[in-house]
Amino acid sequence: MEASRPPVKETIEFARIVAFTDGVFAIAITILVLGIDVPEQLPDPDLHDFLVDEWPQLFAYFLSFAVIGRHWVAHHHVFGMLQNFDQRLMALNLVYLSLVVLIPFPTNLLGEYGSEADAVVLYAFVIATSALLSWLMLRYSLAQEHIHPDAVPAARLASQATLQPAIVFYLSIPIAFISPLAAQLSWLLLIAAGLRERRARRT
Amino acid sequence: MEASRPPVKETIEFARIVAFTDGVFAIAITILVLGIDVPEQLPDPDLHDFLVDEWPQLFAYFLSFAVIGRHWVAHHHVFGMLQNFDQRLMALNLVYLSLVVLIPFPTNLLGEYGSEADAVVLYAFVIATSALLSWLMLRYSLAQEHIHPDAVPAARLASQATLQPAIVFYLSIPIAFISPLAAQLSWLLLIAAGLRERRARRT
Amino acid sequence: MEASRPPVKETIEFARIVAFTDGVFAIAITILVLGIDVPEQLPDPDLHDFLVDEWPQLFAYFLSFAVIGRHWVAHHHVFGMLQNFDQRLMALNLVYLSLVVLIPFPTNLLGEYGSEADAVVLYAFVIATSALLSWLMLRYSLAQEHIHPDAVPAARLASQATLQPAIVFYLSIPIAFISPLAAQLSWLLLIAAGLRERRARRT
Amino acid sequence: MEASRPPVKETIEFARIVAFTDGVFAIAITILVLGIDVPEQLPDPDLHDFLVDEWPQLFAYFLSFAVIGRHWVAHHHVFGMLQNFDQRLMALNLVYLSLVVLIPFPTNLLGEYGSEADAVVLYAFVIATSALLSWLMLRYSLAQEHIHPDAVPAARLASQATLQPAIVFYLSIPIAFISPLAAQLSWLLLIAAGLRERRARRT
Repeated sequence: MEASRPPVKETIEFARIVAFTDGVFAIAITILVLGIDVPEQLPDPDLHDFLVDEWPQLFAYFLSFAVIGRHWVAHHHVFGMLQNFDQRLMALNLVYLSLVVLIPFPTNLLGEYGSEADAVVLYAFVIATSALLSWLMLRYSLAQEHIHPDAVPAARLASQATLQPAIVFYLSIPIAFISPLAAQLSWLLLIAAGLRERRARRT
Repeated sequence: MEASRPPVKETIEFARIVAFTDGVFAIAITILVLGIDVPEQLPDPDLHDFLVDEWPQLFAYFLSFAVIGRHWVAHHHVFGMLQNFDQRLMALNLVYLSLVVLIPFPTNLLGEYGSEADAVVLYAFVIATSALLSWLMLRYSLAQEHIHPDAVPAARLASQATLQPAIVFYLSIPIAFISPLAAQLSWLLLIAAGLRERRARRT
Repeated sequence: MEASRPPVKETIEFARIVAFTDGVFAIAITILVLGIDVPEQLPDPDLHDFLVDEWPQLFAYFLSFAVIGRHWVAHHHVFGMLQNFDQRLMALNLVYLSLVVLIPFPTNLLGEYGSEADAVVLYAFVIATSALLSWLMLRYSLAQEHIHPDAVPAARLASQATLQPAIVFYLSIPIAFISPLAAQLSWLLLIAAGLRERRARRT
Repeated sequence: MEASRPPVKETIEFARIVAFTDGVFAIAITILVLGIDVPEQLPDPDLHDFLVDEWPQLFAYFLSFAVIGRHWVAHHHVFGMLQNFDQRLMALNLVYLSLVVLIPFPTNLLGEYGSEADAVVLYAFVIATSALLSWLMLRYSLAQEHIHPDAVPAARLASQATLQPAIVFYLSIPIAFISPLAAQLSWLLLIAAGLRERRARRT
């Protein structure tokens, strides 16, 4: 059915999917802030203590902002390489988005219970699975030849780059059961490695 | 008044309606996550129990994500077949959206009270009525010849496909009064049937 | 400064303003649902009573959905008639939006305290003032000749149509001090009159 | 890598970045309203007192609406002057957005604790730092010659205009430790000065 439509029509449809996806990313990244608690009617010294104790919530906010931001940049990159799409890719995209949209929930838990294994495990699982789905979308697009031929090498590189955080976050799950803090440090190492690699590619 | 405007103008107006509708879908689907509770200051073992007990909220989240996602895909499909529109269709679209936007409320109730008839009935009623309105928009567009002639057979098929979930969700209401669980299983059968049918159409 | 730019540039800028405005409308209309309470851990009979008592919240939700929806349709109509714009109109648009975005707050109050004068007065004041600003934007655009010459008669009609709800909602404020219910009924009369008028114009 | 792509492709990518950024601004400005408290089940006289006491929350709402609105107008202006962009500018844009999106949190604190130094200091710090990042993006774009040559003088002026609120908000931090009220008045002076300057430029 998709095949019988004129290519221009497909472009409009594709634009709507991209716009919807961008909208979902924009909203998911913005509602992260709603997870930062604002206490009601605390006296002055307690407010000070409260804010000092709140840095894990700010850490969780900025971490998830970076995670969703990276997802968006990657999605952006992948969808820029497509020459074609089908209903199954659209369905995969929705499943992927259902995990991206879920991120504010484990973020919120992490901000509130960052020192407890359950919260860290759930966070790692959701982030790793969203990265895995991103990788799946890319592999599927490569397999179905939806990727523009000129962009195939770049798509292969991007698929490796997407798999890397999936692996790190999944591996951090057993670590979290021993030490929640160590698991969170392993995530920061990933970010540091990412920044270093990007710098290396530039020079 | 609408008729006196040049067709290009109409296209811009139409694009704004589509963009607004897509924005509303994107936001409604994203704020579903706000309905998943994050407890405050629970000790470690209680947090574990809390998360274990929270699976109905995650079930409700993914169910409504699929429902709104399906609504969006269907709307997308229908609006792609329009060659024309009028103020009444725009008004119908707003009434339809008022039900789509409402979905996070019964979703939240369902996640919190999935074993109680009232929550299941309200959920079924809102979903069924939103599907009914989607069907009404399609019938109205067909009756007013707003559908592009080439797309009329596809639009008739789509109208049947929209009516089906409306019927299943309405029929699940009396079931819910007897067994809330059975009503929810009937919804999952609908999803399974939909996936099976789609696979059948492909082969 | 604005004048020295090429007209194409202005079109892109204008498109961004329209897209931002549409986004704000879409979000404001969607977060209305967040104002509907979901109780936590009520036993079954209490949940039933709760939902029965919640109809004022649903009334407030649908009322404000209609109000913001109407605002959006009107804005849409007015911006479709512009041939030009300036920084002051953009500033007016932001002030106007600051009132549209505020609507979920009095809506929430109205749903919770619909029988008390304070909530009804605040609701009426915010809605009336947003309509007044909409009227101001239109008068300003007419005075500055930003309206396309062909659309001037339609713009004059639209400006009257915008003033009408402003007047009704302002007049309902003294009524609300005597009877909050009577004030709310006066708003419904406005909606009924609007629907009747629209039907009259069609025939 | 970016350099090897055709310019049309870049335009589409740029459009997606702008659309995402606009979406984030639209959502951040709209969720400000969620910070205004709606009390539950207060009797009539208490509701009246509550609303009278709530003006600091409305003040915080309108202040932050103006701040985010100004950010959006400025961003809009700067991005309209770009002839080019790179990944680092995109990363800076995300860091900048992470502070804009954070604004509802200190806004909420300010509305609740406007008379306490901690809340005022945090608010000033977030606003000042977001303005500083806006200035950094502009300086970076100028240094990398991403600004269209014709727009360089306007960009220099804009960079000064962005630095000004950063300085005022940072300077208000020591003031807030002495008098939270005086710090807030210094912000209003900034707005008044801004309006006066704009009027001066027009005549």
